Amino acid sequence: MTSKINKIAIIGSGNLATNLAINLSNKDFDIVQIYSRNIENAIELAKQTNSEPISDLALLTKQADLYIVAVSDSAISEVVSKINIKNKLVVHTSGSVSVNVFGNKFENFGIFYSLQTFSKSTIVDFNNIPILIEANNIQNLNNLTNLARCLSNTVRVISSEDRQKIHIAAVFANNFTNHMYSLSQQYLESNNLDIELLKPLIIETAHKILDNNPKDIQTGPARRNDKITIEKHIEMLKNKPEFQKLYSFVSESILNFYKSDK
Amino acid sequence: MTSKINKIAIIGSGNLATNLAINLSNKDFDIVQIYSRNIENAIELAKQTNSEPISDLALLTKQADLYIVAVSDSAISEVVSKINIKNKLVVHTSGSVSVNVFGNKFENFGIFYSLQTFSKSTIVDFNNIPILIEANNIQNLNNLTNLARCLSNTVRVISSEDRQKIHIAAVFANNFTNHMYSLSQQYLESNNLDIELLKPLIIETAHKILDNNPKDIQTGPARRNDKITIEKHIEMLKNKPEFQKLYSFVSESILNFYKSDK
Repeated sequence: MTSKINKIAIIGSGNLATNLAINLSNKDFDIVQIYSRNIENAIELAKQTNSEPISDLALLTKQADLYIVAVSDSAISEVVSKINIKNKLVVHTSGSVSVNVFGNKFENFGIFYSLQTFSKSTIVDFNNIPILIEANNIQNLNNLTNLARCLSNTVRVISSEDRQKIHIAAVFANNFTNHMYSLSQQYLESNNLDIELLKPLIIETAHKILDNNPKDIQTGPARRNDKITIEKHIEMLKNKPEFQKLYSFVSESILNFYKSDK
Repeated sequence: MTSKINKIAIIGSGNLATNLAINLSNKDFDIVQIYSRNIENAIELAKQTNSEPISDLALLTKQADLYIVAVSDSAISEVVSKINIKNKLVVHTSGSVSVNVFGNKFENFGIFYSLQTFSKSTIVDFNNIPILIEANNIQNLNNLTNLARCLSNTVRVISSEDRQKIHIAAVFANNFTNHMYSLSQQYLESNNLDIELLKPLIIETAHKILDNNPKDIQTGPARRNDKITIEKHIEMLKNKPEFQKLYSFVSESILNFYKSDK
């Protein structure tokens, strides 16, 4: 495969598939097909991208230059086993699944991982989203790099091993962080208080890391080793064992993290 | 005390004291004194605010309209015991210390809590920072409200009990969140990878909560109940027991949080 990528089949219709398909379509790539096991979902996304919707992988076109598998991690292996494409380029989009999932079945394969959190309801611009790519040979790597550069200013070639490590770090920085927001909101709501008051703090905390090492800007009772406040908070959370456990555990983790600094 | 607040003494020279003193000075309040037990720190902040530096509370002026105690939570009680002011207004600035810390010693007292994280090196504008106030009578409450409104668009009267609850929520949303960033960075660095790649994700995650309930936008392996990825991540972290413990614990917390949704 030496030709430039133009015709693209999208396998999936979830949060990432939707964001990718619409962004690629906006950049004048030809989204020829959208596959979803639920035909309604395929039809909906196909409408937005001028594509053919299918719900059976046996109907997958042979005419695309690139097949993007954008399904949940646990479904990748099964979907890949059902793709009967010999020499075209097939990629998946997962942070945590190794390139080895393609086995010996394909001549041309790779990874196209967008390092961001997506939702169907908000289509984001890929301009500032890092795209991490990997491929089985230089030609495929070049084609994927060129494609990625049409979408994003930050394109990196990253091995499966490093991508999986970056994905773990992203779980801490994104999923766990959002869980802290959720807990904060639930705690406030259960006390008839409102998370609105905390939003400036949340935004400031995130923006501070743009110019600072997060380790250096840590504040709060655990960072100050303020055992009186920590104990008081744990006591105040006594009727909420889940919150109490998490408060103790993360505070302990902060204390340990800075122990060598004392 | 019925007069408007103009002359202010700042007791403390740390992150919050510095931000408060400079912002109040910029709004043309007269910062008459800066106290710090370390005179060098008092001198440095006093220079920036045209004030008199002192390092002995016995030298505290009797001429201020307001005394703002901006010291660490654990020092408030001792500092308050050394303030010999009869009928002027004295406030502290802590999220977690009750108004009762003033005991019966003062005729006029209250709380002036700025809901934000501060550092000396970056002076932030208080415009969007919520200020939560409390006072022992209506006159003091009005004076503090008027003062707070000179600094911020968001001023609320909040009881000590509710302020302490909001402070717990802020620990989750700010301190614990920043710790997740720190862990993420440390893990990447120990693998010769760079947190730069994650910054767009971190900013997007924070901004998403401005228009969404954090509970509704949670993503990631634990939210999807993707046990294969969770197990793989835990296995990959086997040489980093602190990270492994935290990964398991927070993932478990996310699973429990959404259990009733399944």
